[in-house]
Amino acid sequence: MRNIALVLSYNASKFFGWQKQPCVVTVQGTVEEAIKKITNEDVELQGASRTDRGVHAMYQVANFYTKSDIRAENLRAAISAVIPDSIIIRKAMEVSSDFNARFSAKKKTYMYIVDNSELRNPILQDRVFHFPYKLDYEKILSAKDIFIGEKDFLAISNKAECENTVRTIYEIRIERKEPIIAFYVTGNGFLYKMVRNLVGTLLDVGRGKKTIDQIRNGLEEKDRRLMGFCAPPQGLYLYSVEY
Amino acid sequence: MRNIALVLSYNASKFFGWQKQPCVVTVQGTVEEAIKKITNEDVELQGASRTDRGVHAMYQVANFYTKSDIRAENLRAAISAVIPDSIIIRKAMEVSSDFNARFSAKKKTYMYIVDNSELRNPILQDRVFHFPYKLDYEKILSAKDIFIGEKDFLAISNKAECENTVRTIYEIRIERKEPIIAFYVTGNGFLYKMVRNLVGTLLDVGRGKKTIDQIRNGLEEKDRRLMGFCAPPQGLYLYSVEY
Repeated sequence: MRNIALVLSYNASKFFGWQKQPCVVTVQGTVEEAIKKITNEDVELQGASRTDRGVHAMYQVANFYTKSDIRAENLRAAISAVIPDSIIIRKAMEVSSDFNARFSAKKKTYMYIVDNSELRNPILQDRVFHFPYKLDYEKILSAKDIFIGEKDFLAISNKAECENTVRTIYEIRIERKEPIIAFYVTGNGFLYKMVRNLVGTLLDVGRGKKTIDQIRNGLEEKDRRLMGFCAPPQGLYLYSVEY
Repeated sequence: MRNIALVLSYNASKFFGWQKQPCVVTVQGTVEEAIKKITNEDVELQGASRTDRGVHAMYQVANFYTKSDIRAENLRAAISAVIPDSIIIRKAMEVSSDFNARFSAKKKTYMYIVDNSELRNPILQDRVFHFPYKLDYEKILSAKDIFIGEKDFLAISNKAECENTVRTIYEIRIERKEPIIAFYVTGNGFLYKMVRNLVGTLLDVGRGKKTIDQIRNGLEEKDRRLMGFCAPPQGLYLYSVEY
């Protein structure tokens, strides 16, 4: 069996998230069906990130095993021809048999886009989170450092997890071009809704609803009540995956 | 009766265009219904531009007459509260009784966004026109001047019109930030599909499918066959209206 890795982008507003589920249209299900049309095989597509409903991807990575001998670039073109416009296969390449898009990933970066305009912009609908409140940008920049490093991130996960909730965040980069603020969060892995809680917490600090001390304590004491809100999915993008 | 002018933006991908029609959801129909909820009146909303299906608006202007004495800013807030997220009312103001959003307009500017990437970007789906061909940008810049001034634009209109097809284009500004090209076309008025035919013609010149001489002759001789293709609606935005 050959192992094929795909790099793909998608507009999440057309899907019920990445992961295959009965009775709804998902990215994984749609691409698996497209592959079946080309190779006549039932494949299992393993994604680097199981992006939630509403979460977009600039560069998602996924892999599947096939008996087909179609060249990778031709597979890319053929799959692209049969999937809807809301997904694109940017690249396809043959990789070693032990490559697993999810478990081989070393670093992932998520981007979160906030529209800080007073009025929401319908042109950006489903692509950004509109947050109209006045923000103290310097406070957001100070607060972000609390999350850098190897830490237990239970306080910004939405699930009580029995499993290990320690992760490492390598970098949080924030770019502002008024009225847009873009957060780039790079880590070795992320808990359920972790990036959205992190961004919501930074926005609450910027708005003055939470203090930097509160969120530092909240993270240390694993107390979710001290942290901010969960920012909605439509501002979130899987931005890159490194191996 | 008071005359109220609205400035509104909308994401066209959710509507069958501006103009009210039976059995489909249009921008005009949706805003008129929202006004009815607030004032309990059947109003006729006159838009500066009857944008086609798929054409977005950054700043559309529209007016309607009402007996309501609700202050304009409160009308704005109330209408905004009952319309879907794909439309926003940016401003509402009382204007003189002879103001007509359509016929009082002196200048309109349309923006057309082309994504010149090799692969289409699903994140920009329904917001730009993906045109992957290599373009000679200098040729596009030279060709645009053919359209400047008071001319008969029949050759870039999609309808054989009995009415006057003379219009004035004041300016065509082109901004490029790879892979995005934005065309801004300002004129005193536009024929049906005129901006889309103009952009398609410039793209065909850039791609080498039409020469500058061909399109100069085509415009002069009112010969559509010498002009380029009609660019699709999803790249087009009503950008501003001046009075």
